[in-house]
Amino acid sequence: MALAPDNKVVLVIGAGDATGGAIARRFAREGFTACVVRRSAEKLQPLVDRIHADGGQAFGFACDARKEDEVIALVERIERDIGPIEAYVFNIGANVPCSILDETARKYFKIWEMACFSGFLTAREVARRMVGRQRGTLLFTGATAGTRGASGFAAFAGAKHALRALAQSMARELGPLNLHVAHVVVDGAIDTEFIRTQFPEKYAEKDRDGLLDPDHIADSYWFLHTQPRDAWTFELDLRPWAERW
Amino acid sequence: MALAPDNKVVLVIGAGDATGGAIARRFAREGFTACVVRRSAEKLQPLVDRIHADGGQAFGFACDARKEDEVIALVERIERDIGPIEAYVFNIGANVPCSILDETARKYFKIWEMACFSGFLTAREVARRMVGRQRGTLLFTGATAGTRGASGFAAFAGAKHALRALAQSMARELGPLNLHVAHVVVDGAIDTEFIRTQFPEKYAEKDRDGLLDPDHIADSYWFLHTQPRDAWTFELDLRPWAERW
Amino acid sequence: MALAPDNKVVLVIGAGDATGGAIARRFAREGFTACVVRRSAEKLQPLVDRIHADGGQAFGFACDARKEDEVIALVERIERDIGPIEAYVFNIGANVPCSILDETARKYFKIWEMACFSGFLTAREVARRMVGRQRGTLLFTGATAGTRGASGFAAFAGAKHALRALAQSMARELGPLNLHVAHVVVDGAIDTEFIRTQFPEKYAEKDRDGLLDPDHIADSYWFLHTQPRDAWTFELDLRPWAERW
Amino acid sequence: MALAPDNKVVLVIGAGDATGGAIARRFAREGFTACVVRRSAEKLQPLVDRIHADGGQAFGFACDARKEDEVIALVERIERDIGPIEAYVFNIGANVPCSILDETARKYFKIWEMACFSGFLTAREVARRMVGRQRGTLLFTGATAGTRGASGFAAFAGAKHALRALAQSMARELGPLNLHVAHVVVDGAIDTEFIRTQFPEKYAEKDRDGLLDPDHIADSYWFLHTQPRDAWTFELDLRPWAERW
Repeated sequence: MALAPDNKVVLVIGAGDATGGAIARRFAREGFTACVVRRSAEKLQPLVDRIHADGGQAFGFACDARKEDEVIALVERIERDIGPIEAYVFNIGANVPCSILDETARKYFKIWEMACFSGFLTAREVARRMVGRQRGTLLFTGATAGTRGASGFAAFAGAKHALRALAQSMARELGPLNLHVAHVVVDGAIDTEFIRTQFPEKYAEKDRDGLLDPDHIADSYWFLHTQPRDAWTFELDLRPWAERW
Repeated sequence: MALAPDNKVVLVIGAGDATGGAIARRFAREGFTACVVRRSAEKLQPLVDRIHADGGQAFGFACDARKEDEVIALVERIERDIGPIEAYVFNIGANVPCSILDETARKYFKIWEMACFSGFLTAREVARRMVGRQRGTLLFTGATAGTRGASGFAAFAGAKHALRALAQSMARELGPLNLHVAHVVVDGAIDTEFIRTQFPEKYAEKDRDGLLDPDHIADSYWFLHTQPRDAWTFELDLRPWAERW
Repeated sequence: MALAPDNKVVLVIGAGDATGGAIARRFAREGFTACVVRRSAEKLQPLVDRIHADGGQAFGFACDARKEDEVIALVERIERDIGPIEAYVFNIGANVPCSILDETARKYFKIWEMACFSGFLTAREVARRMVGRQRGTLLFTGATAGTRGASGFAAFAGAKHALRALAQSMARELGPLNLHVAHVVVDGAIDTEFIRTQFPEKYAEKDRDGLLDPDHIADSYWFLHTQPRDAWTFELDLRPWAERW
Repeated sequence: MALAPDNKVVLVIGAGDATGGAIARRFAREGFTACVVRRSAEKLQPLVDRIHADGGQAFGFACDARKEDEVIALVERIERDIGPIEAYVFNIGANVPCSILDETARKYFKIWEMACFSGFLTAREVARRMVGRQRGTLLFTGATAGTRGASGFAAFAGAKHALRALAQSMARELGPLNLHVAHVVVDGAIDTEFIRTQFPEKYAEKDRDGLLDPDHIADSYWFLHTQPRDAWTFELDLRPWAERW
């Protein structure tokens, strides 16, 4: 597959069948080459195939984003073989509720490692490249748990709070270097296979627009990317119309 | 001038030469009939003329938005003579910094009356119509002062905090009735005549995109209006890339 | 009644049978002369009598705190006839929930006037005296509604947000002038006659400490007043142990 | 040394010469047996000696609070040999500023491990005991970095945000089980050896009360511990009077 000389890359860390995938497709539709990443390569293939079928460019990468050497190699390879990363999206979640009394050290650590540490590693590595070019967009998928703690959510809220602090710290440091860093607070259930099978009662709200459509979430990410630099947004929230908050 | 039968109105309270005007022009470009409001009718004429010149529909209304009877009459007249108000924008500011020790009762009251009370009156009156139709968008222009107080800003911060509380309370009550209520935190100097003449040093930053362009602010308002209801934003911030925050 | 030459005054605006009264009694117990204020003088008498019975000094003042001239005269008189105001407490509430669609201009204004504007007038007037002496404490009674809006609470949330903005702005301006300004977020039902008669089910929680005891609220105000200036608190929250938040 | 049968323990994780030590001394003065913990036992001895000299009870424990087995053994031993832990204080900091571009994976991890993960491990382990007795206080030392990110502070802000989320989640889960969980936002330089030697210019502000006195911080922790359960505080901030915020 031949890549255009002015090829631009969107890198999506945590690209499954829902939000991450929708964002990759959205940017691909706008001419970006989508580099989509998750731990398992085979789970990426349907997304890559779909983008190709839509006439877009896409590559799947198996990578454990919690491993610094893998992350460094990934960014190195994309920048060398595919093109400059113009947009970066971090989209790994890891919500496993648990009473604080029963929470294990292992799980508390793993939730932070997945939902925050891998965000730090990948965003830092990408920012290093972007700073050299003095341009780029870094977008983080947040959650309500990133703005307040809740009973049973100490681990997830901790990871999401830390991710929001990362985004905010990067925005304040890198904004004046012309990198647009933003954080999206997704508040509500997303239309996914997981909700369909695990929470059928919740899923029934889909008919009245009670579930976030991944394509509509993706529209907001694209909007953030296209903002001119005199009017950048750091944070916006997204929730269904009838959601209580 | 003949109005189309499916005529839709955007009502902009506080439409001057900058943000409010840009929002009115943006919605007019999308086919809305812009009803623009400020105290002085003659100051509205250039905006109405400009929208006409761009091929859009616009009407100017002189109205003191702090007077309940004037507000009720205004909304009544627009709904009867022009069309249903589909989008509402509140954009009156009133920032006059002052030490708390020197602040007068009169000025403290007037700042609240302009920047908050007129928002309550107009938003309530419009919401009453929108609720009957079960559709509509209400957008409030906020400021950093709406999220934290500062030395010398007791009056302005008070009014802006109250306005944000109004927007949040309305969002929580009216969202489930299918009205989209959102609040935009504008953080930074806007490219206006006021900044140009009063803060020339600040204005010099325009060359490097250091001032918010009203047209770009308007793009975010339009974006909010177009969000599908499964993914509504309540709040976003806007600031120039190099702004400290 | 003879006043000691080193007489110190606590001024409590909004002193009824509950929180304001408890704060006045607490400071009186510590040797302060309590000047307690509400619109009706006769309703103050039981509080004044109780403080006297406890061996303290107290004076009741009828004053409409929304009237600038009355406020100026009140502070003038206390400072001249009784003593320097060392501590000031603002404690007027005005929570009358209402749908935004039914809210009247008159009620929206009155709630702001009582719960915010009278706070501005009295705090400013007292701060002018304190600044001259370079010492004093100003304490504001807040509510959860001062930190977020809610359905049916546009007016009250607006007033309480504005009051919090006033406190924060004053803290930032007057802290460096050695005035301690603090804001207390009271979150939950207080043990009052109002709750007892209007919400008997809620009142039943008193037996398991589910209602805030005004004397315990008063302890926190006293604690804030006694903090040394190298470790001042601007804000603390108070709620019963089992309260959901 | 004989322990009284009604012996009560305060456990201080991160007890050095400043804040943690002052809190241990404060609780010891009130009759608590202070169990003070840090990695190096010998650095604890001066604190233990000082508490003894003041007539209090104290024990030092060397423990790496990042190691689950060490933490479990520590709590087991204290509860068995010394007494029930009635109050717990987490006080480990780890602020090492760094540009996000230069931040290493190792340091980002270590800052989280020290300032957050060890808080999770120790608080969980203590809460398990307290829940069985249905009583106890858990206090966390926070920082401004726990409420907002800043340029150069991605790692520290991340850890402190996560710690605040831990405290808030625990408060919401364990409050209704009668455990008082609170978070103290310390905002400003503390009077320590570190500030004295590293920031002599800042240290010079001590003369005008510009540095937080550890003993005054300790007073606030004691105040939180003594609050009756109908009026608990979750969060308060502490800063010197002239501090900008």
